[in-house]
Amino acid sequence: MKLCRYGAPGAEKPGMVDADGRIRDLSGHVADIGPEQLGKDGFATLGRIDPASLPLVDGDVRYGPCVTGTRHFVAIGLNYADHAAESNLPIPSEPVVFNKWVSCIQGPNDPVIIPRDSKKTDWEVELGVIIGTRASHVDEADALDHVAGYCVVNDVSERHWQTERGPTWDKGKGFPTFGPVGPWLVTPDEVGDPQQLGMWLDVNGERKQDGSTSTMIFSVAQVIAYCSQFMTLEPGDIITTGTPPGVGLGQKPEPWYLKAGDVVTLGIEKLGKQRQEFIAWEAGR
Amino acid sequence: MKLCRYGAPGAEKPGMVDADGRIRDLSGHVADIGPEQLGKDGFATLGRIDPASLPLVDGDVRYGPCVTGTRHFVAIGLNYADHAAESNLPIPSEPVVFNKWVSCIQGPNDPVIIPRDSKKTDWEVELGVIIGTRASHVDEADALDHVAGYCVVNDVSERHWQTERGPTWDKGKGFPTFGPVGPWLVTPDEVGDPQQLGMWLDVNGERKQDGSTSTMIFSVAQVIAYCSQFMTLEPGDIITTGTPPGVGLGQKPEPWYLKAGDVVTLGIEKLGKQRQEFIAWEAGR
Repeated sequence: MKLCRYGAPGAEKPGMVDADGRIRDLSGHVADIGPEQLGKDGFATLGRIDPASLPLVDGDVRYGPCVTGTRHFVAIGLNYADHAAESNLPIPSEPVVFNKWVSCIQGPNDPVIIPRDSKKTDWEVELGVIIGTRASHVDEADALDHVAGYCVVNDVSERHWQTERGPTWDKGKGFPTFGPVGPWLVTPDEVGDPQQLGMWLDVNGERKQDGSTSTMIFSVAQVIAYCSQFMTLEPGDIITTGTPPGVGLGQKPEPWYLKAGDVVTLGIEKLGKQRQEFIAWEAGR
Repeated sequence: MKLCRYGAPGAEKPGMVDADGRIRDLSGHVADIGPEQLGKDGFATLGRIDPASLPLVDGDVRYGPCVTGTRHFVAIGLNYADHAAESNLPIPSEPVVFNKWVSCIQGPNDPVIIPRDSKKTDWEVELGVIIGTRASHVDEADALDHVAGYCVVNDVSERHWQTERGPTWDKGKGFPTFGPVGPWLVTPDEVGDPQQLGMWLDVNGERKQDGSTSTMIFSVAQVIAYCSQFMTLEPGDIITTGTPPGVGLGQKPEPWYLKAGDVVTLGIEKLGKQRQEFIAWEAGR
């Protein structure tokens, strides 16, 4: 099952994506795709609906973030060994955990604002995990039971703010528009093994990242179990699980960052794709 | 004006505190104390109410967190020079910003759970700033216009998780119960200068922290303006602004941390006080 939210920012309606990739209106069955719908009971109801029975949504509608009500947007750093190497950082012995402010969440194809005075705005294609049921002190063996679905995330980052302005990373990860999420929440039954998904990212049509979740250092199950020791994961929370090599910071012979007018496209196998135009701060304000 | 939220966890009602410190039921006028009420329009309405005209709340009721709907719980590190020194860290040249997961927020007198296997659970009395109106790229001169009120925060911390388990602090700051907030949201007109507030914290009746917001490195206005460059501050957000010296990490001749059964009391001039019993993880689960 593929779920989505579509329409104008702040007024999205719930949708289901049919076998042909078209959006069907789900608002006759649920109010939204959020914490109240994500638990197993809510999903069981949705799973009985035939998408073909739902009204077709006409036209070229905007996708919103595929989930609402997110209280924690948790991010894992350096979770691919090759990316740690390109960042000149050691391979972590346990997951690196940081925060993206939830107000940075936006639709998958909305423009991304390059912050005022930013010189190092960078991209990161990542597998997003959407939590369906509360998780506190869960074991790795049970961790995937708490997953409502998976999605594409671009963990947009300002590298100078992230690593050169104090001892935490949070400054450089949560600027408004830095969290494109979606287009779809794809349920685990349709995704299969989350550690076997190809992923890619292009800048202006040139391939920059070409990886697979198979090379993660810490698996999705390990990451959920780990985070649940430090915090309570709640329905609607998103964990974005790290990026493979090929970010701007790792370009050779020297780092290369985004400028206004650049277009980033990215996708993950089975989870759809995103497209963002990067725009100047003044234009986006 | 002193506002509060009282009653059972998750079922708090809004209240106003009268001149004698008694809670008056405000639920006939507003649904809650949260983002919808915090803007200037909502407060103007509340300001016209005489607390004595409201029903008195009988008995020894629990205080909940003094604000609901918080989407960002932002924290400032090392914002008192003497505390940076006791932490063996340099005085920062710009604010250190980190995150407390919002699910750690709780009432000011609720028990705090010492995490499983924790050896370094620590205390930090801090001035909390509650945002009333959206703040993005605001100047220092305008920053205090965005404040709905002030409150006491205990920025409970697990030091090992914070500083010895990877390059960010977020692991050690957001464990469930690590965010006592309240008892009151006190409006700026009643607080006056936020940089002239005495603050204190006792462990088992022994004074550990005895400071004043007058010795902050970065003022409340500077902190708001600074954070608003990196993120959008929203109504209901809380910024906790750092702690003066005297935390467990800084005790002489050696660090000293909390154990089950310890009682922490803390307060800030004009903002009320908190009392927490620290309990073992097994007991609090």
